[in-house]
Amino acid sequence: MTDFVAWMQACQSRMETVLGALLPQPGIAPARLHEAMRYAVLGGGKRVRPLLAFAAGEVTGAVVERVQYAAAAVELIHAYSLVHDDLPAMDNDALRRGKPTVHVEFDEATALLAGDALQSLAFETLAERALADDPRHQLEMLHLLAAAAGSRGMAGGQAIDLASVGKSLELAELEFMHIHKTGALIRAAVLLGAHCGTLLDRQPQMDHYAKCIGLAFQVVDDVLDAEASTATLGKTAGKDAANNKPTYVSLLGASRARELAQELRADAQAALAGFGAEATRLRQLADFVVERGF
Amino acid sequence: MTDFVAWMQACQSRMETVLGALLPQPGIAPARLHEAMRYAVLGGGKRVRPLLAFAAGEVTGAVVERVQYAAAAVELIHAYSLVHDDLPAMDNDALRRGKPTVHVEFDEATALLAGDALQSLAFETLAERALADDPRHQLEMLHLLAAAAGSRGMAGGQAIDLASVGKSLELAELEFMHIHKTGALIRAAVLLGAHCGTLLDRQPQMDHYAKCIGLAFQVVDDVLDAEASTATLGKTAGKDAANNKPTYVSLLGASRARELAQELRADAQAALAGFGAEATRLRQLADFVVERGF
Repeated sequence: MTDFVAWMQACQSRMETVLGALLPQPGIAPARLHEAMRYAVLGGGKRVRPLLAFAAGEVTGAVVERVQYAAAAVELIHAYSLVHDDLPAMDNDALRRGKPTVHVEFDEATALLAGDALQSLAFETLAERALADDPRHQLEMLHLLAAAAGSRGMAGGQAIDLASVGKSLELAELEFMHIHKTGALIRAAVLLGAHCGTLLDRQPQMDHYAKCIGLAFQVVDDVLDAEASTATLGKTAGKDAANNKPTYVSLLGASRARELAQELRADAQAALAGFGAEATRLRQLADFVVERGF
Repeated sequence: MTDFVAWMQACQSRMETVLGALLPQPGIAPARLHEAMRYAVLGGGKRVRPLLAFAAGEVTGAVVERVQYAAAAVELIHAYSLVHDDLPAMDNDALRRGKPTVHVEFDEATALLAGDALQSLAFETLAERALADDPRHQLEMLHLLAAAAGSRGMAGGQAIDLASVGKSLELAELEFMHIHKTGALIRAAVLLGAHCGTLLDRQPQMDHYAKCIGLAFQVVDDVLDAEASTATLGKTAGKDAANNKPTYVSLLGASRARELAQELRADAQAALAGFGAEATRLRQLADFVVERGF
């Protein structure tokens, strides 16, 4: 486990360096926009999606100098979505990763444009240099990420989330929302990392692993939102209940939600049963994602 | 010229069909988001960028079944930028293409997400199917569009535009803003259309043509905004003066702005001097872009 922590920190540190180099320097015009983009992305976050990309890359023997750009692209999409989510027209949140949100620190128009430009930068990053042996695999990576980010992925999940405020959802509807809102991008992180190496015929298993982890991640998030403090989370806690949003906790209770997270973890591990030591990091991440909530 | 009008109408009609098929059907969940995306894109607009892509494709012998997707991707980026521009935090405009803007017809959150999802759909469209003989050329197309849309392109131009409200700019600064805000995407339209065929060594000339057209387009836009009526434009006229925005008209006067547009047209035509009949549509478009203002 010490070894896992060291690996995680090395990945996070590499990610920070790569993102810092990809983001336009703050001195370049338009300076305020570039400052806002850097503010939104750097110096915070657990980088769960990049970690999953790095771990998936290990399974397919991908070189880390490629995986780091796939990981960065996914993280840029994630960062843009947080900036836009926090806007007054959406969740209207003032705190993120222990700091004022982008529209509070800068202004609404800058936050809107910074989010827009971060999305463009994600695709620029994926298209800019060779990341796969076959350029057609790289086109597939771009397609995967765009679909995961769009209206039938993350953005669609946000729309369903907004529409669900104040409504009571069935468990199946809640799951549908989260498969879009969080699951699609987590799945993209795993598949993009894997695409940098030699995929062989393992994609279905990795895909199933990714779906379980994506859902487990959200279940744990709901538990944390209900039970942790704002100081621990670095973002406003208790927000879901305050906004009258349906969650796994409101639907199942905290105790059953915890059980569900454990079941999803077991399911994710089972999907990796046919893999050897090359999937060690993916297995450890499944434990990490679930245990951060307990 | 009759022939040119027929060609233009055929391109516009093809574009409407292709966009209608690419956009998610309104019945698919999340239905409201998909309705907003279709509302933002379909049934309006001159499709100047797609026309430029089709015309550039003719120069390089590209098949129209490929160019139409490159053209659609550029138009989706353009459409997303209009939706976000019209938001209250930006230009706060209620009218576009003769209809209520997306956030007026739907709501702010839906407009924000529709814009976000349209950007993703643009890249999905470019990555989804083979559009160039060499997949590496297609990766270059994705890179070109992402860079043109991002903080060193269109989104950056918007940020400079916002920062310029109420300030007096030098001509060089105004040009810098427009090269980003409008020019980058118009250039991308030309280059993406060309990339669907056989580029040979003509890229620099087409690039110069595109830069001249992009700037001419903006100069004419400024003249129209200052002189045409809201009914003719289908969007709020006189907006620049009302918002105290620097324009070519406020800086040069309408008469000199008109001369500048003609000079840029001549410059664009000169860039095509080495081409034959295959550049006829590009030449006609240069005239069309400038003459719509007169």
